[in-house]
Amino acid sequence: MRRATRIDPFSFTIDATTGIITPYDNLIQRRLSHMKGMFIDEDAFESMLEIEDTLLYEVYEVKVPDEAGHLLFCTSITYPGKVGREYYMTKGHFHENIQTAEVYYCTRGQGIMLTESDQGDWRAEAMAQGKAVYVPPYYAHRSVNTGQEPLISFCVYPGGAGHDYASIEAKGFRKLVLEKNGRPHVEDNPKWKTKTT
Amino acid sequence: MRRATRIDPFSFTIDATTGIITPYDNLIQRRLSHMKGMFIDEDAFESMLEIEDTLLYEVYEVKVPDEAGHLLFCTSITYPGKVGREYYMTKGHFHENIQTAEVYYCTRGQGIMLTESDQGDWRAEAMAQGKAVYVPPYYAHRSVNTGQEPLISFCVYPGGAGHDYASIEAKGFRKLVLEKNGRPHVEDNPKWKTKTT
Repeated sequence: MRRATRIDPFSFTIDATTGIITPYDNLIQRRLSHMKGMFIDEDAFESMLEIEDTLLYEVYEVKVPDEAGHLLFCTSITYPGKVGREYYMTKGHFHENIQTAEVYYCTRGQGIMLTESDQGDWRAEAMAQGKAVYVPPYYAHRSVNTGQEPLISFCVYPGGAGHDYASIEAKGFRKLVLEKNGRPHVEDNPKWKTKTT
Repeated sequence: MRRATRIDPFSFTIDATTGIITPYDNLIQRRLSHMKGMFIDEDAFESMLEIEDTLLYEVYEVKVPDEAGHLLFCTSITYPGKVGREYYMTKGHFHENIQTAEVYYCTRGQGIMLTESDQGDWRAEAMAQGKAVYVPPYYAHRSVNTGQEPLISFCVYPGGAGHDYASIEAKGFRKLVLEKNGRPHVEDNPKWKTKTT
């Protein structure tokens, strides 16, 4: 391992209610148009997009050397809502270095952390204020907001982990989180099956 | 890097008010008697110890493979109080692999994260509910409770980081946090100087 870059200690504030980090270096905003093909109900998606390119989630990042030994961190804010029966969610990703984990600490909201490994194992972990989820190495992860208010987490992952969005964009997750009788329900993703046959 | 061990995703609860992780695997409890020689006022220390071997801090840990790629995490609860003019604090440590960082997210209390690098740089970062501190590689770190209630943080660090307590036990920190006119005050550690000359 090459030597980790020296930087000074520093502190920052995390607003548990808004998810805003102060000070932050980078803000990622994902809107409906960035998520084309990711929701199962394409008709519902197109109808919504004609009306408004809604903000689905935001990520506040602080710049730290992106190297092994350092830790990267951010807040993730997924807004409440649905496309058809499917709850608003993040794109989800594997880490480029698939051997790296991530820890999520939820400060507000209700949701599900959908995870799926490179070997096809999957798990849906409940998220709520005060709950944390350990996403181990080899697992893609997606935050799904099944509640009525923003789903906010503070996330930490190793420097050098990287993000692989392409695998999920190409195949999707094996499972979807859909509303059924007014409650979240984990179902098979029919599109995922089509793409692998 | 050898391959990271596969484990399943899991979730746990962090009580922001007590610092208790549910479920946890290990609880470290440090009492006054474990901190002999670490507080500057040895007479005050001995007088207190004669009366009671007070609990100074606790650490709740969850067992995850202690390997690069995984992330270890815990809660740290430092209780309020003073030995002489010096606030209750943790032992403090470098990481054995000095090239690894740690992130602290404070959920309750008031305090100072005292940090000091292998090259003699130091920094005192204020801690309070909602504040987080980034302890970069090369920095020893110690939580100091300068308030009236428990100082509680959720901490994340890389698997394989390890703990080097011996360096601090032998030399102490360059700086102390003492009460002066009713407020925390960072001062030089006279014992540290003695030991290096």
